[in-house]
Amino acid sequence: MKHYTNIKDISNLTDTIKEAILLKMNPYEFSDLGQHKTLVMLFFNASLRTRLSTEKAAKNLGMNVMILNVNDAWNLEFEDGTIMNANTSEHIKEAAQVISQYADVIAVRAFPSLTDKLKDESELVMNSFMTHATVPIINMESATAHPLQALADAITISELTEKAKPKVVLSWAPHPKALPQAVANSFVEMMQSMAIDLTITHPEGYELSEAITKNTPVIYDQNEALKDADFVYVKNWSSYKDYGKVLNQDENWMMTKAKLGHAKFMHCLPVRRNVVVEDAVLDSEQSVVIQQANNRTFAAQIVLKQILEEL
Amino acid sequence: MKHYTNIKDISNLTDTIKEAILLKMNPYEFSDLGQHKTLVMLFFNASLRTRLSTEKAAKNLGMNVMILNVNDAWNLEFEDGTIMNANTSEHIKEAAQVISQYADVIAVRAFPSLTDKLKDESELVMNSFMTHATVPIINMESATAHPLQALADAITISELTEKAKPKVVLSWAPHPKALPQAVANSFVEMMQSMAIDLTITHPEGYELSEAITKNTPVIYDQNEALKDADFVYVKNWSSYKDYGKVLNQDENWMMTKAKLGHAKFMHCLPVRRNVVVEDAVLDSEQSVVIQQANNRTFAAQIVLKQILEEL
Amino acid sequence: MKHYTNIKDISNLTDTIKEAILLKMNPYEFSDLGQHKTLVMLFFNASLRTRLSTEKAAKNLGMNVMILNVNDAWNLEFEDGTIMNANTSEHIKEAAQVISQYADVIAVRAFPSLTDKLKDESELVMNSFMTHATVPIINMESATAHPLQALADAITISELTEKAKPKVVLSWAPHPKALPQAVANSFVEMMQSMAIDLTITHPEGYELSEAITKNTPVIYDQNEALKDADFVYVKNWSSYKDYGKVLNQDENWMMTKAKLGHAKFMHCLPVRRNVVVEDAVLDSEQSVVIQQANNRTFAAQIVLKQILEEL
Repeated sequence: MKHYTNIKDISNLTDTIKEAILLKMNPYEFSDLGQHKTLVMLFFNASLRTRLSTEKAAKNLGMNVMILNVNDAWNLEFEDGTIMNANTSEHIKEAAQVISQYADVIAVRAFPSLTDKLKDESELVMNSFMTHATVPIINMESATAHPLQALADAITISELTEKAKPKVVLSWAPHPKALPQAVANSFVEMMQSMAIDLTITHPEGYELSEAITKNTPVIYDQNEALKDADFVYVKNWSSYKDYGKVLNQDENWMMTKAKLGHAKFMHCLPVRRNVVVEDAVLDSEQSVVIQQANNRTFAAQIVLKQILEEL
Repeated sequence: MKHYTNIKDISNLTDTIKEAILLKMNPYEFSDLGQHKTLVMLFFNASLRTRLSTEKAAKNLGMNVMILNVNDAWNLEFEDGTIMNANTSEHIKEAAQVISQYADVIAVRAFPSLTDKLKDESELVMNSFMTHATVPIINMESATAHPLQALADAITISELTEKAKPKVVLSWAPHPKALPQAVANSFVEMMQSMAIDLTITHPEGYELSEAITKNTPVIYDQNEALKDADFVYVKNWSSYKDYGKVLNQDENWMMTKAKLGHAKFMHCLPVRRNVVVEDAVLDSEQSVVIQQANNRTFAAQIVLKQILEEL
Repeated sequence: MKHYTNIKDISNLTDTIKEAILLKMNPYEFSDLGQHKTLVMLFFNASLRTRLSTEKAAKNLGMNVMILNVNDAWNLEFEDGTIMNANTSEHIKEAAQVISQYADVIAVRAFPSLTDKLKDESELVMNSFMTHATVPIINMESATAHPLQALADAITISELTEKAKPKVVLSWAPHPKALPQAVANSFVEMMQSMAIDLTITHPEGYELSEAITKNTPVIYDQNEALKDADFVYVKNWSSYKDYGKVLNQDENWMMTKAKLGHAKFMHCLPVRRNVVVEDAVLDSEQSVVIQQANNRTFAAQIVLKQILEEL
């Protein structure tokens, strides 16, 4: 693997998932692989799970880890040709090349503005690192994608499914704040790559990009969509059409035990209890969110392993 | 040791102190014990000594250390059943379970509000981690206790005392801000567990919880209390009765060379010079505050060692 | 080496540069030297390169690294005899002694006020650490000096020069903010210590301290100064005479391809494109800023190595 900024960077998904599950059974098996290799983790945004699980994964492989909250340094410039006499002190051209000399792999988290759709879709930050860095880049959630989360989700479903082709439903949920589409986008793409029967349900106006959903059925009636589901992935996102807007906070879209049926409940976390999903679901055996979060370590670890093997 | 949130978690104090002093002589003796073990340190509040000494202690034992300033992530919810549509993004139920999967031990610093006595005394944050985490918890100063500091203090007195039963005085000092009772509480409890003649002195209104002081003599006359002291531990705390209030800033309570007599001067640091204690004391041979701070490493290290041995 | 707060702490510059270049070829050769040794890095100010390269250097030598953004803890007091009843919670006397017990080497970054010349020139923070700490101190940029940068610059020129005595020009550049003289000061002192023909050029009013420039020629006509230069080091600084003031933002002082001639372009970074230097220079083969930044690692590593060897 050269970079991991998109789930398409995985060359053989089935094998990758299998290998991740083996790593989980024996996390220190390759603890020499990362010797004298350094992961630099750059955060433009807050993180709890991603930060801890990715650092853990790198250390399981014997890597050194250096973490920088970029906002603790100064603002980076991403536009070409700017006269930098305002708020940005360093251009990504220098920053990415410089950090590449201290790092063998760079992991980046950079959320979208949710105000400028074109700019967000251009993935300016992630692509600038890809262009100017001279080492592999890992996406720790960008404007439009969260491929480490999607890989952890794929591992979790693979571990838990009792069917050759389970029914998975991605169900929108209400939330007080405008959130990115990144998790939903990568989850949809990941499910499309697997032997999964995927259905999406959300209120009208919350359609994801057609470049993402493609032929995946979208059903506006949540109850109909949830019928006979084996896994229900609940997630809020803000409107893509009316970009970044919160159009709907209808509590009826909250996931409940009654709606869930016999399905496993999935969420990427953090999750707002009794807004996105009721306590009764999260506190039941059907919730697999803790297992998903654990698999974040092994998603990151298999990605780092595949990258280190090609360095 | 299962957890270390309270000095009562130490099963054999005398042996623990002896073993800490041995560790200090040979800090890397058990540097294999922590191999492939991870300490996650979570800070809800600022730290200098606790952060550096606990990280050092863990690394002396060969552990990996991951540090998260929780405020750099987002606000956690600690109440049950809340509809989380306001300022908290993740419930401690998820956070504690998730972090437990990345950590073999979790250390937490969470100060009191000093406005809500009942809530502070309930130790909501520390107890929530105890309840929901699935790994041992270490208290790096909670609402009402600072047991790592108290253990370092016990080690220091054990190293320095020339008597079988030294006289130790806990002497309140003025301070411009309202500070927790945590250090004083744990120090009193620790001294009560040792062969120590403990006296407490403070202005009226600054009585600590009776659940802490028990039969320990409290003398309002500082000079009388200090008579023939071998060790004087100086510390400010805000009122417990008139909860969290600064009732008194009387400079006469500041510790001076004259008052100290021949006693050793102790303080947990940070200390405000010429407010809590005059320069002449801190700059004299009688001050053992630097030795106390050094013992923070070995207090943390013996606690981590005892926890790792039972994992 | 005992400390590295000033380039004068290097006893044999030629050998040090040679050894740094050897380390660059084999960075893990001395990875046992730092075993069980801890570097504590203390940041009073923001950092990107210095933080990552110094941490990398220490880890290349097998050291443990602990990093503290001091502002995440509390304000330190540096004045003697103060009644600390205001904004400072801990005196440097305690802090430096305490941290020395957790560290084998302490590295400090502390920028100048740019408002109080006498105080800045007294190097209060760095000298207080020197006075009160009991372990070696490394300057990661202080009020008046940036010796790790200057050493990286010396390494870079040594690697690249094709002449026994190259002509090096330090050329002031405009900048929207008031910046310290530290980089320029240490660069000038470093060049004076080498077989270098150094010229300084800047607008009138931007004269550096005479204690720094000594006999180095200062030419106010930039074009004349740049004539036949082999290396041009561009850097903004605020006025030293009219202390901390921005007297001039004349765009004509920006470095351009035309002015640069055949010289190599140097800058310590971060650099504001099209303010300090035009894109055409930075994007050309003549720019060696990325190589300079890489050499920050080996400057820090040779300094740490020489310090560790004398511990």
